[in-house]
Amino acid sequence: MNCSIAQSLEVIGEWWTLLLIREAMLFGARRFGEFQEAIGIADNILTERLRKLVKRGVFERISASKESRRGGYRLTEMGRALFPVVIALMQWGDRWIAGTHHTPVKILVKGSRVELAQITVKTKRGIALTPDDIVLVAGPGATAETKARFKPKISREFLIPSF
Amino acid sequence: MNCSIAQSLEVIGEWWTLLLIREAMLFGARRFGEFQEAIGIADNILTERLRKLVKRGVFERISASKESRRGGYRLTEMGRALFPVVIALMQWGDRWIAGTHHTPVKILVKGSRVELAQITVKTKRGIALTPDDIVLVAGPGATAETKARFKPKISREFLIPSF
Repeated sequence: MNCSIAQSLEVIGEWWTLLLIREAMLFGARRFGEFQEAIGIADNILTERLRKLVKRGVFERISASKESRRGGYRLTEMGRALFPVVIALMQWGDRWIAGTHHTPVKILVKGSRVELAQITVKTKRGIALTPDDIVLVAGPGATAETKARFKPKISREFLIPSF
Repeated sequence: MNCSIAQSLEVIGEWWTLLLIREAMLFGARRFGEFQEAIGIADNILTERLRKLVKRGVFERISASKESRRGGYRLTEMGRALFPVVIALMQWGDRWIAGTHHTPVKILVKGSRVELAQITVKTKRGIALTPDDIVLVAGPGATAETKARFKPKISREFLIPSF
């Protein structure tokens, strides 16, 4: 599918996948056993999930060395870049599922112990946006099919209403 | 699981689910046929997914009326609040899968046609954060099991290294 949301979900769209990223990103999990203990899934499923994520570039294998006896799996730069997705998802669950006064976990900044800002969609000049404020246009990587999707939507903007 | 990420994924963790939200949020899909055409999934699966999302409060059913012949499904406030999650996921795919110069779709602000800012995790005072800058603590809704997860992590901060 010619869509970055669909393509992202192809890589991280499985339930367990994002939980593995959560464990590594927020709880510092690294060894196979740490992922397993935290999430409690069968060995063969965990192995397959981690292998897939290594292949897709989200995790990398690290081998035990003299300096570090902790071999295992580490998030790559691509994996760490999911930080805003993970935090936005957590904030949504805090607000809409757990409820603000019943959040299971709080995230604070190390040292200063201040709280995070709510993640929002903004313009580059800092103006907050809702889904009603945006318009989609074909990007440089749009296929013919994708371009066709925008035709009626864009032209509708310029339609003169008939009275 | 006593975690807002896991609880969110329980609601929107299926591949198709987020694509349905994408269709409604970004392309204005509303009728059953519109979701079907855009995503191309079997009737019975689509019916079941939409029913689940209505039950969980993400979509609401709207019936056709004299004023509007377009009955179907509409995002609730809870569903619309996924806007930052959807945009963060899209931006991640744009950067790490499609590549910045090959993005399938571009989002602009209606009217002004300016681009969106990159979604980032920040403190309330606007300081950008990475996964290394944060610490997790038990929230007001933490179960005993969740509290126990933080014990070693927090105490480690105060450990005096032994030379």
